[in-house]
Amino acid sequence: QPPPCTDFDIAYFHSYSHLGIHHEMIKDRVRTETYREAIMRHQSFIAGKVVVDVGCGTGILSIFCAQAGAKRVYAVDASEIALQANEVVKENNLSDVVIVLHGRVEDVEIDEEVDVIISEWMGYMLLYESMLGSVITARDRWLKPGGLILPSNATLFMAPVTHTDRYSESIDFWRNVYGINMSALIPLAKQSSFEEPSVETITGENILTWPHEVKHIDSYSVSIDELKTVTSKFKFSSMMRAPLHGFAFWFDVEFNGPAIAPSNYHSTSIVDNHMANGSQRKRRTNPNEALVLSTAPEDPPTHWQQTLIYLYDPLALEQDQLIEGSVTLSQSKENARFMNIHLEYSVGGRNYVKESVMK
Amino acid sequence: QPPPCTDFDIAYFHSYSHLGIHHEMIKDRVRTETYREAIMRHQSFIAGKVVVDVGCGTGILSIFCAQAGAKRVYAVDASEIALQANEVVKENNLSDVVIVLHGRVEDVEIDEEVDVIISEWMGYMLLYESMLGSVITARDRWLKPGGLILPSNATLFMAPVTHTDRYSESIDFWRNVYGINMSALIPLAKQSSFEEPSVETITGENILTWPHEVKHIDSYSVSIDELKTVTSKFKFSSMMRAPLHGFAFWFDVEFNGPAIAPSNYHSTSIVDNHMANGSQRKRRTNPNEALVLSTAPEDPPTHWQQTLIYLYDPLALEQDQLIEGSVTLSQSKENARFMNIHLEYSVGGRNYVKESVMK
Repeated sequence: QPPPCTDFDIAYFHSYSHLGIHHEMIKDRVRTETYREAIMRHQSFIAGKVVVDVGCGTGILSIFCAQAGAKRVYAVDASEIALQANEVVKENNLSDVVIVLHGRVEDVEIDEEVDVIISEWMGYMLLYESMLGSVITARDRWLKPGGLILPSNATLFMAPVTHTDRYSESIDFWRNVYGINMSALIPLAKQSSFEEPSVETITGENILTWPHEVKHIDSYSVSIDELKTVTSKFKFSSMMRAPLHGFAFWFDVEFNGPAIAPSNYHSTSIVDNHMANGSQRKRRTNPNEALVLSTAPEDPPTHWQQTLIYLYDPLALEQDQLIEGSVTLSQSKENARFMNIHLEYSVGGRNYVKESVMK
Repeated sequence: QPPPCTDFDIAYFHSYSHLGIHHEMIKDRVRTETYREAIMRHQSFIAGKVVVDVGCGTGILSIFCAQAGAKRVYAVDASEIALQANEVVKENNLSDVVIVLHGRVEDVEIDEEVDVIISEWMGYMLLYESMLGSVITARDRWLKPGGLILPSNATLFMAPVTHTDRYSESIDFWRNVYGINMSALIPLAKQSSFEEPSVETITGENILTWPHEVKHIDSYSVSIDELKTVTSKFKFSSMMRAPLHGFAFWFDVEFNGPAIAPSNYHSTSIVDNHMANGSQRKRRTNPNEALVLSTAPEDPPTHWQQTLIYLYDPLALEQDQLIEGSVTLSQSKENARFMNIHLEYSVGGRNYVKESVMK
């Protein structure tokens, strides 16, 4: 019995019916070329096999899979864009290989088991949009034992951030506006600038210390239930004396084959962490040379950028000062496509809470 | 009997309750510094006088007028931002001079005649948002005979544009997407990229010939009725052999004093036009050295940028080829804040029509 398709789901699917959003994603070369590379590296698992592309959009990943020799690709999308994907498939004379299914993975029928699931499901802060649930549904409905899921795992990171330019531009701006003191607007400026999460590109210079791993997801074992609420405790030690302006979130995903043992293939990062101090690292070494799509500030920018949760007021940090607390990400009860972000943190013996909603 | 305040008006006013939009406007230095300069140049008309600021926003122009020595400034705004303006006024100890009125100019009461009306009312394509009607209402309700209106006049221009990079990036992109032919998406790409007007910054390089004056507005004599529908015939002669991709619209406003005779002060541009060929000019000479706020492609960029109406398909133009037609801008009947743009043009003996709506 599939879950009901809510009005929010319908609005969500409709937001992908506009071509502009697909244009933006496809022209993100880091994203699209990494996916193509992942498909080509796993060609031995794809050639002659059956693939499902969850949320196929314009169908580009499905066609990459067809080019890699897939016997059949089910390209599934609940958005109207599926009709366009079908036209692209026809134009490329791939109708015998790529079968476009317009509907939710919960609702469409595929009358065979599949060898491979591929999906580009990641939202801002990894979990925004809650699309991973569709991949899980596809896995549980159709994937053969021993089948391949791309990406194989995903990790959400966070780190404390200093960003004086951004704070000044949004807040201090009002202290002297063409010679006029408009500080009376600062409370509203803080609210309008920092109430909601901000998607923007920062650099490694903004990051105050090694990131914390908020959530590691194994595509093979993750359940829909564990994504409803994700909580993680963090403990940062600032490497600099600097104002703390907020926390940045980003993610990476890896594309590993199913042949490597699970304890290995989804956790080069975790292994590194454990070798270091258990929860913190700035940059992964990658001994297995797994293919990684990274949206970290120190890596080339992507359309995901980073997601910033700004504090309403900066906190002065000394070098080596601790920032301890926890973050809870939960699907909004009203609209599961929204995400509530609850941050608790203490600095210098004082406790703070920041609530925000990604809409 | 004031016109009713519709749900669309309420939504419109509410869109100005967010501080971000005011931040964007205020930090547009071309805009804000030109207004400040206009106030300072007209200090002799303002000092000791009564001013109305129509749509005061955060109150910055009202405070400039107070700094110029105004006896009293009525700062009127129907948006909630008026409450913030009031806080700014208090913080600057100007409550005796600047009286913030939260309401529509149609509804608020001012119990005296005023000497000066100032307003930054211009929207994209000059007329989008239909805010000039509020200035007209203020003028007709309160302005003394011989009073000053800033800006004193405004002119909307259009010109044919070539913009191969933009067209390629939006349309030709789909011909070869990482080696895949996705031309099947081109009809949708044309619709999604070019159905609506596009606000973007172009340069003088994109302009194919001298602009056409679509509408000249004299702040002293313009009526609400004449703004409901504006029609203008144009005849361009392309100075280059190039593909025609669409038409660009931009405007300028002038800040002239009331002392100069009307036939003079609102039409340096018109005088120039008549001396040239009656309707076309690329750049105004300005013998009276009127202060001009220009949003033309050849001038420094502003937050208004330019507004582009793209054709779905480019038309190949020869040098000196004629483009004749007409443009009609009308307030949407459903929502007067929206603008319908009806373009008819003929090139090489063929006739074309492009309809779009600015929402």
